[in-house]
Amino acid sequence: MLHKTTEPSPPAAEVKLSRRWQWSTRGRAISYLMEQAVENPNAISLAAGLVDPSTLPVAETRRVLADLLGDTERGCRALQYGTTQGAERLRRQVALLLGRLETQSAVRQNGAHAASVEIDPAQIILTTGSQQLLSLVGEILLDPDDICLVAAPTYFVFLGVIHGLGARAVPIPADENGMQIDRLEQELERIDAAGELSKVKLIYAVSYYENPSGISLSTERRRELVALAERWSRDQKIFVLEDAAYRELHYDGPDRPSVWSFDPAHETVILAQTFSKSFSPGLRVGYGLLPKPLVGPVADRKGNEDFGSSNFNQHLLATVLESGLYEPHVEQVRASYRVKRDRILAAADKYFADLPGVSWVHPQGGLYVWMTLPEQIDTGLDSALFKRAVKIDGMMYVPGDLCYAGTPAQRRRNQMRLSFGVESPDKIEEGIRRLASAVRAVL
Amino acid sequence: MLHKTTEPSPPAAEVKLSRRWQWSTRGRAISYLMEQAVENPNAISLAAGLVDPSTLPVAETRRVLADLLGDTERGCRALQYGTTQGAERLRRQVALLLGRLETQSAVRQNGAHAASVEIDPAQIILTTGSQQLLSLVGEILLDPDDICLVAAPTYFVFLGVIHGLGARAVPIPADENGMQIDRLEQELERIDAAGELSKVKLIYAVSYYENPSGISLSTERRRELVALAERWSRDQKIFVLEDAAYRELHYDGPDRPSVWSFDPAHETVILAQTFSKSFSPGLRVGYGLLPKPLVGPVADRKGNEDFGSSNFNQHLLATVLESGLYEPHVEQVRASYRVKRDRILAAADKYFADLPGVSWVHPQGGLYVWMTLPEQIDTGLDSALFKRAVKIDGMMYVPGDLCYAGTPAQRRRNQMRLSFGVESPDKIEEGIRRLASAVRAVL
Repeated sequence: MLHKTTEPSPPAAEVKLSRRWQWSTRGRAISYLMEQAVENPNAISLAAGLVDPSTLPVAETRRVLADLLGDTERGCRALQYGTTQGAERLRRQVALLLGRLETQSAVRQNGAHAASVEIDPAQIILTTGSQQLLSLVGEILLDPDDICLVAAPTYFVFLGVIHGLGARAVPIPADENGMQIDRLEQELERIDAAGELSKVKLIYAVSYYENPSGISLSTERRRELVALAERWSRDQKIFVLEDAAYRELHYDGPDRPSVWSFDPAHETVILAQTFSKSFSPGLRVGYGLLPKPLVGPVADRKGNEDFGSSNFNQHLLATVLESGLYEPHVEQVRASYRVKRDRILAAADKYFADLPGVSWVHPQGGLYVWMTLPEQIDTGLDSALFKRAVKIDGMMYVPGDLCYAGTPAQRRRNQMRLSFGVESPDKIEEGIRRLASAVRAVL
Repeated sequence: MLHKTTEPSPPAAEVKLSRRWQWSTRGRAISYLMEQAVENPNAISLAAGLVDPSTLPVAETRRVLADLLGDTERGCRALQYGTTQGAERLRRQVALLLGRLETQSAVRQNGAHAASVEIDPAQIILTTGSQQLLSLVGEILLDPDDICLVAAPTYFVFLGVIHGLGARAVPIPADENGMQIDRLEQELERIDAAGELSKVKLIYAVSYYENPSGISLSTERRRELVALAERWSRDQKIFVLEDAAYRELHYDGPDRPSVWSFDPAHETVILAQTFSKSFSPGLRVGYGLLPKPLVGPVADRKGNEDFGSSNFNQHLLATVLESGLYEPHVEQVRASYRVKRDRILAAADKYFADLPGVSWVHPQGGLYVWMTLPEQIDTGLDSALFKRAVKIDGMMYVPGDLCYAGTPAQRRRNQMRLSFGVESPDKIEEGIRRLASAVRAVL
């Protein structure tokens, strides 16, 4: 029956990978950064996007799990399969949490009589970190060659998602109020004139303390962004993907309502948030609040990919929220990062004050300080500065050019993302001192 | 600056979803099944792929977590971000577990002197259930229009993955020893003659107690499958994706070595397994053992999708394995399902014995009995039998035609997957009684 062959098989048949894989090249820069971290264990990392270990809720988690697993029936519900959309218990808590965040902002903006905001748990999908939500939205909306408009700079992992789909990320300049809406309008006019408006499906905006720039979109621009997306939804719907991962890490300055809040019909904005920064990234629980027509498609796509994230972790977080442990914990997290934000800014003042042409953003939340060096200093992975910082001075940063979409000419190469997330205040100061030493050496 | 427009936005711009989403239609049959379950809460479910709640390790998980979270440093490591590939602690334990499983099978096959099998943790990737591993392998290997060869019938969720990529699943007939290797060879000859061999990237095989058929690939065919994949890797490498999700749910009959064990160079077979059936599906921890050239690409792709599954759950399972709690638990799980397997087979004998033209497979492991009715009885979601079983007799099954690739003419429509996973032994017997009543009614 079966032909047994005596010929040896060809020694190494070529492995042919999919186009989709070939498109995903951005991830490799991050792998290189992580390798550098492993090879240089004494380097202070102002590169890693990790959270501060001292903020991690070990005691809270222990308490909540003793409760969840102290009852066999409750424990079984958490250890069984969940649903693709995610545990209703947590979706209900997320709806309440988002409602509280919106109501708080509205009260601060409009006084105590602002209406409270209600959110439908049926429009929430729970994912493996908010990263998976971003990826799923890309999967269901973007075909190869489609267009997603993004700020310049923006979150580099999402640029990888767009490229991994074979789609195009088109950069829009940003200033101290975030993505410039007039420039966005001009870009849409240009795209329309080129006959490509039907390819625009999505505008991506990191609305609070953007990774990497630390900048927030101003309240006025939030409103304008939604109006613009609706106005340009001529050939097809153009959605706004609001990435609010850092929203709860708010230290000072205005408490802004979400971009989502300026879309009262809930037809245009997809809001993505996460418990990774505010509670624990190890649980990998993020979530999206979606316009109704997208809930089914995102859930279908997630069904193909993993048919649901960890049900156990969803029940764990639902218990944390139900028991009132969440908000006091977030307050502690904020207090801890506020100290570190102040420390990194003080260190920058101390060590960079006398260096002409160096400037940096003062973030009102989040985990990053975005620093600009004089034009002639290249900060890239292959640059003299990066090598010197890692190998001689012993510190790491994320090169700014990784955070730009577009052609090499469109990417600024003299910037850096400096994270104050993972290191202690003293190490942060020392990291900035070492960076200043590296910059002086290459100047 | 910004043009404020007074025109109202068009009332409902069309939502244009990606081709990729349009390709993923299989998931909707499962959604329909789940809706039916919700709408008919008293129906006994021999459809759901859930595990038996009485097997869920509530006590073990409580014990292990008290330990993991009893130490702040250990707890922080689990609650922090992990890596995309997965926690090394668990990858090391998985390598040891897979080594033990292979060594056991080798000893049973070849006597006590069989060499012990060593596995490199660097070739293991931890995923959100083994489903995500299957999906990632599809993503990095299959372009639209590519070909993946599968058994007929096979795991319907993987058919959804293939279709979601725009690729083609080509069915190969199976008998009581699994996928027929001579028919696989004939199909490859046909594909080659049609000039399409360069499109064949993957052969998918559920090697143990296949979902849905309950059939295992015979040991001889495992060897032949690897040899065939290597022989036909002419234009490019053809990989074998071995889905061994049910491997540890072994009740009687031979303890077979994996297909992977017949690939001593570790170049051809991708082995996917999971802790969902043997421990807890709520944790969503699966894993793949990959040929070296695929480790980086799968990790890159996973980096785009979620940059890592729950690190917390990986540390939890590593602690379970390190503390020796895993194997005794799996032994209990097996004992519990063995009783239910015996019960469903006894019930089928009791209620179907006098119905001519009805037959079923006696599985030696796993969670499913595959039943064939007389040719003229359609079991599909739209059929009289399905409606009658759900609405009148009060039971649910998975229609067999969902488990076939290929054209409607290639799909048999008179079969059913009957799961003994979730219901109690008494409910299982009652479910079979109700099914027999429905079949009699439509005969």
